[in-house]
Amino acid sequence: MENSIFELQYALDTFYFLVCGALVMWMAAGFAMLEAGLVRSKNTTEILTKNVALFAIACIMYFVCGYAIMYGGDYFLTTITGDGVTGAEEPASYAPSADFFFQVVFVATAMSIVSGAVAERMKLWAFLAFAVVMCGVIYPVEGGWTWGGNSVFGMYTLGDLGWSDFAGSGIVHMAGAAAALAGVLVLGARKGKYGPNGQINAIPGANLPLATLGTFILWMGWFGFNGGSVLATASVESANSVAIVFMNTNAAAAGGLVSALILARILFGKADLTMALNGALAGLVAITAEPSTPSALQATLFGGLGGLLVVFSILTLDKLKIDDPVGAISVHGVVGLLGLLLVPVTNDASSFSGQIIGALTIFTWVFGTSLAVWFLIKLVIGVRVSEEEEFEGVDLSECGMEAYPEFTNGK
Amino acid sequence: MENSIFELQYALDTFYFLVCGALVMWMAAGFAMLEAGLVRSKNTTEILTKNVALFAIACIMYFVCGYAIMYGGDYFLTTITGDGVTGAEEPASYAPSADFFFQVVFVATAMSIVSGAVAERMKLWAFLAFAVVMCGVIYPVEGGWTWGGNSVFGMYTLGDLGWSDFAGSGIVHMAGAAAALAGVLVLGARKGKYGPNGQINAIPGANLPLATLGTFILWMGWFGFNGGSVLATASVESANSVAIVFMNTNAAAAGGLVSALILARILFGKADLTMALNGALAGLVAITAEPSTPSALQATLFGGLGGLLVVFSILTLDKLKIDDPVGAISVHGVVGLLGLLLVPVTNDASSFSGQIIGALTIFTWVFGTSLAVWFLIKLVIGVRVSEEEEFEGVDLSECGMEAYPEFTNGK
Amino acid sequence: MENSIFELQYALDTFYFLVCGALVMWMAAGFAMLEAGLVRSKNTTEILTKNVALFAIACIMYFVCGYAIMYGGDYFLTTITGDGVTGAEEPASYAPSADFFFQVVFVATAMSIVSGAVAERMKLWAFLAFAVVMCGVIYPVEGGWTWGGNSVFGMYTLGDLGWSDFAGSGIVHMAGAAAALAGVLVLGARKGKYGPNGQINAIPGANLPLATLGTFILWMGWFGFNGGSVLATASVESANSVAIVFMNTNAAAAGGLVSALILARILFGKADLTMALNGALAGLVAITAEPSTPSALQATLFGGLGGLLVVFSILTLDKLKIDDPVGAISVHGVVGLLGLLLVPVTNDASSFSGQIIGALTIFTWVFGTSLAVWFLIKLVIGVRVSEEEEFEGVDLSECGMEAYPEFTNGK
Repeated sequence: MENSIFELQYALDTFYFLVCGALVMWMAAGFAMLEAGLVRSKNTTEILTKNVALFAIACIMYFVCGYAIMYGGDYFLTTITGDGVTGAEEPASYAPSADFFFQVVFVATAMSIVSGAVAERMKLWAFLAFAVVMCGVIYPVEGGWTWGGNSVFGMYTLGDLGWSDFAGSGIVHMAGAAAALAGVLVLGARKGKYGPNGQINAIPGANLPLATLGTFILWMGWFGFNGGSVLATASVESANSVAIVFMNTNAAAAGGLVSALILARILFGKADLTMALNGALAGLVAITAEPSTPSALQATLFGGLGGLLVVFSILTLDKLKIDDPVGAISVHGVVGLLGLLLVPVTNDASSFSGQIIGALTIFTWVFGTSLAVWFLIKLVIGVRVSEEEEFEGVDLSECGMEAYPEFTNGK
Repeated sequence: MENSIFELQYALDTFYFLVCGALVMWMAAGFAMLEAGLVRSKNTTEILTKNVALFAIACIMYFVCGYAIMYGGDYFLTTITGDGVTGAEEPASYAPSADFFFQVVFVATAMSIVSGAVAERMKLWAFLAFAVVMCGVIYPVEGGWTWGGNSVFGMYTLGDLGWSDFAGSGIVHMAGAAAALAGVLVLGARKGKYGPNGQINAIPGANLPLATLGTFILWMGWFGFNGGSVLATASVESANSVAIVFMNTNAAAAGGLVSALILARILFGKADLTMALNGALAGLVAITAEPSTPSALQATLFGGLGGLLVVFSILTLDKLKIDDPVGAISVHGVVGLLGLLLVPVTNDASSFSGQIIGALTIFTWVFGTSLAVWFLIKLVIGVRVSEEEEFEGVDLSECGMEAYPEFTNGK
Repeated sequence: MENSIFELQYALDTFYFLVCGALVMWMAAGFAMLEAGLVRSKNTTEILTKNVALFAIACIMYFVCGYAIMYGGDYFLTTITGDGVTGAEEPASYAPSADFFFQVVFVATAMSIVSGAVAERMKLWAFLAFAVVMCGVIYPVEGGWTWGGNSVFGMYTLGDLGWSDFAGSGIVHMAGAAAALAGVLVLGARKGKYGPNGQINAIPGANLPLATLGTFILWMGWFGFNGGSVLATASVESANSVAIVFMNTNAAAAGGLVSALILARILFGKADLTMALNGALAGLVAITAEPSTPSALQATLFGGLGGLLVVFSILTLDKLKIDDPVGAISVHGVVGLLGLLLVPVTNDASSFSGQIIGALTIFTWVFGTSLAVWFLIKLVIGVRVSEEEEFEGVDLSECGMEAYPEFTNGK
């Protein structure tokens, strides 16, 4: 009888992981649509190719070595069976392969953040080469510091310092943004984005319904991203926690959207759809570091703060001539940091100092190694397409096909 | 042991609510895509902005006061914790925050119905102002009459009269349509829709793949909408009920699509895609008032009736010069009423008189208050854009950006 | 107490079926978007109409007679209740209507495969007439040979010969492709596809973001397709199996995408997005016949093989002047066969001879009967639109409306 109850707990927790994992996988489609909607039509096929390819690379590289780097064990390129893996605690409380599935889709999320920021001028294969290192090594090393319980190169352990990052505002989102920032700095701005006298030229996205769809997909997928990070649901306590996480994730997105919409209205005099979308995403990033302890009101306000911050951050980055076509560095990096700093407000187990040290540790590692890798790629195969290719659009030079061959009006 | 079983029931019911809630949240994307596909390209950014913003407003306003109005209790703007709320029955059989999450996405559905009907000529901020009142007060009041067990202003209680509306053909869909109808009457038709000699000019939607995607999203999300309305799944009886609801929901959509497709073929001589899509949605609305008691054959036929009715309703509304660009009033209002009237056919606990009184009660309340609110908004900030703005498209005047800046051919 | 545990198992298995079924239903949207993205804009409304209509027809016809043909019993057009159906084993371990729901969405998948291959020149109503027979008879007969345990016309039983097809690489995918191949042979190639001197003209798809979205949808939905085919999840053993299936399904898609992308790069010198998408789908089809016994490494490699094969198959079919606008015959048929032949590599209960006999049996039946039905339809109402209609696009002649009335540049 007792065994039957254990079997049911195991089955329910496993199914919960799989459903949440499928929702996180769905976020890959969200990033693809968001980015495809926010670039110009001549660079759309290439950003789509990057997005599908990075997801596949993430899955393969995390399997090849990432999972082993992050969680230790001897399962480098080995079989993850239903019976678990050597050295795993027994009995496991859910299927080991469900855990792998849930973890692997997180890697892809981190990498998806990069593709938008370097859009419209990076060589496709340079990007994919970076994806191999990011998903196979850079992310797993820093992810392991929190979720694997590994020490930071034997020096200190983040958990001991009062560091807490529930679902990855830092580990996933800020990390992805740090890699993106390194890439953008190596790459430079798109031609024509910044004028000679300091003017900033708007380069409108070609397909706003796609960008909106992408945001809705990410919003939906985030229920799996945050909700699955409770890591269990088969008890009253964990079920309550998962439910609160769902409620708060939704509330934060709503708060971020409304605050960004209103702020943009005040600043620009219009209801700026792209700012509203980025506001919703900022709300989601802001709550990701701790969605389980705030009240719904706090979650709405935290999301709202994220929505305000993202608007100012996007404007500021443009002033600094850091060209990020989709606002990914602001949404995931700047607001990711905000999310980390908001954790101690509601979670007593964390401290501001711990959050700051953790954020610095992750940023230093990801930004530093990414910069080195981007430079190496630049040396070996180059990172930027030629000026002519950029002018014609990378779809033709990199992919050999237009995304909308019958539609563009040459504007 | 007994406690372990209770914990598992609680956990499974909570997870079921959360999955269904995520599917209903996904319906917001469906409405956004459906409406964005059925309007002209020059009004697309604005309809997208409305759809994302209304969802966020619904989430916030329902939290601020809607939930308390609908279900009573003292949790106006207060914390909904895992431990439940003061006064709730103990022990709860699922997480209170999962209930809130499931309820909050329903409000957004009701409001999404409005946005399509008033598309292409309403001021964005007038619409959002209405959303605040609709989601915060109008919907919660009438929703509470059924799902909160509240009496209608102390006069009578719908449940006592043989009223039954399982998942909300009336409470959600007809209510949304009633608010939309009031808005359309205050607003008037789009310029050029109706000619001086009674002719009705077709204004084709700009992007039918989007409209089709939106319909598929709604179809999928409806499994959560109806399936979650069983309110429990952790027993043989409730699991059977949820399964029947999924099967019947799907059958009704299929019946509605086929009947509308065939009727449109007979009437117009072509396979009319938009009528087929509206037929599927009509089938879904028709079954929503009672998806648990019909057989699959009955569900298919009820959906088929909805598919026929929606075609005639769309044609009739156009003759009455009630301009509804996406057919929302027909799909959700007229067919919502049909759904209510079909309940007593298979559910003995309901009566035709109860269904009629309930429908009249809800319609009177929602239409009356909506009309008042629309008029008030008209007085204060106006509801309609200027003729020139309407001609240029509301995207530029309201949002300052085109949805497809590189695509339109000026046709 | 024991009864409570049974109730929970029943409830969890039922919910698992329903969630997986909803994901498979979602694949219908994936096929619709994939195909709408890969055809020309002038044929987009029609392919969308086909896709929504075939799904509805599949649901109705499977209910009318397909389910009874496939699984026997006396429930031809009868009620499937929560209490099960006469003659069903008692007690059932999940809701009978959940089983029906899960089965019915599979039929639609098989039929969706056909619509892409015959795109851009087939009469809409001819296609829908075929859908009636395919979903009502052809698929249920061959599906019943495996999943219903029926003998092949009283001659032999596939299961006795060492045949195994876990989730339907053969039963669903190769079967759909066989019906499609028959249709393409009866129909002929699109005008202008093959030049007089053997040249093959590329006809680019009009909307690659849609095609990418469709692939992501299919990838996501496939978790339900394969994961649900374990048929139970409420025990440690079955939960482990479902988790392995999710992990392997994802790994195979990743492997297929990467191998097709690299092979296309070698062959054509570009990162070919459509080949990458077909590679991912090929990986998914390849693993579908047996996703539960391979290791993640094997799944990745099997998917990779599928990705290579699909590229060569698409090139070969074009040389044979078999015109398949979306590559459906290659993805689902040729790679479906590969998937069947890979089963014995990891599943000892199957044999190569059994797989070959099973594949031949299914192909012969589906191809033969489909050819007969297509010819009959050709005789009675014709299968191909007129040359002028094909030139103008089938959207106007069949549906009377353009998919993108404001966008096309006449290129």
